Amino acid sequence: MIFNQRGYMTTSMNDIIKETGIQKGGIYRHFKDKDQLMIEAFQFSVQIMQQHFVSMVEPCKNTKEKLNVFVEAFFDLSRNKPIVGGCPIFNAATEMDDLEGNTLIDYIDQAMDELKALLSNIIHKGLQSKELKEVVNPDEASIFIISTLEGALILYKLKKDEQIITSVHHHLNHYFSTIFYERQ
Amino acid sequence: MIFNQRGYMTTSMNDIIKETGIQKGGIYRHFKDKDQLMIEAFQFSVQIMQQHFVSMVEPCKNTKEKLNVFVEAFFDLSRNKPIVGGCPIFNAATEMDDLEGNTLIDYIDQAMDELKALLSNIIHKGLQSKELKEVVNPDEASIFIISTLEGALILYKLKKDEQIITSVHHHLNHYFSTIFYERQ
Repeated sequence: MIFNQRGYMTTSMNDIIKETGIQKGGIYRHFKDKDQLMIEAFQFSVQIMQQHFVSMVEPCKNTKEKLNVFVEAFFDLSRNKPIVGGCPIFNAATEMDDLEGNTLIDYIDQAMDELKALLSNIIHKGLQSKELKEVVNPDEASIFIISTLEGALILYKLKKDEQIITSVHHHLNHYFSTIFYERQ
Repeated sequence: MIFNQRGYMTTSMNDIIKETGIQKGGIYRHFKDKDQLMIEAFQFSVQIMQQHFVSMVEPCKNTKEKLNVFVEAFFDLSRNKPIVGGCPIFNAATEMDDLEGNTLIDYIDQAMDELKALLSNIIHKGLQSKELKEVVNPDEASIFIISTLEGALILYKLKKDEQIITSVHHHLNHYFSTIFYERQ
């Protein structure tokens, strides 16, 4: 988890040894190099986050509830739940996007596609069940919602002000109310 | 500008020497240490970005135009304009937020307050001139807009897909259309 808090490039093998108490020899017996360790740590963080989303969204009865719970599950990250340090995808993306030839970028890219797919599937099903208005584009709406959530989380982590979560949650709820048919 | 692309903690004095062609002695004659260099580089990037926003927003006739131009000015960052590497405030914030005792955090915090103030002033004036609906809260609306813009920029830098900018722009325009009185 140290990578998600301190950054992938900034964290040295010595930091990892200090944090885990595992000796250098022990780490290199399990991982061929720092790159492989970074990739596996990233994949592990993403998996924990995705499982959290899926387990919270799955029991929901309808699309409105699913979207609300998706937002709640995301904002759990601001309370270091289920992992410490915020969204591993955006943390890694911000750190890596301008670094050339890094090994993690494809994994970040794929993890973001999976997060977007989770949300656009909810929206897609809501269109099929006629809960959501026909004009809603699952892909575009997911991009908008994820951008807003990720931006809010970074802003919250900077300012440590609950108002950020509340304001953005409130605005997203308003947005949701405009994409559902009235009878909802 | 190397800090905005490669990260403040990741960039070493040797990287700076390589990038600028200035020798270590030359750098230390101007800046007492890497911390001071980081702070001045950050302040410089933020100033360039703020000037870009102000110079684009100032000539606008009304609040609707100002908000649209603010969004356009922000998305210029996706085309490395006026600075390379995206928004310096969010880049630094993502890198720094979990690092204890770092010297840059107060400057990041202040720069974000200034960006938010620029936007909430536009909204505040739009309320005074009765262009915007009374229910709009300048502080909350700015937090929502900035979160969405910053999130979209990071997502765009990861995916390099113009659809991200287009989708988010389109959704923000829709949001703007809901906060103005009809006669606009």
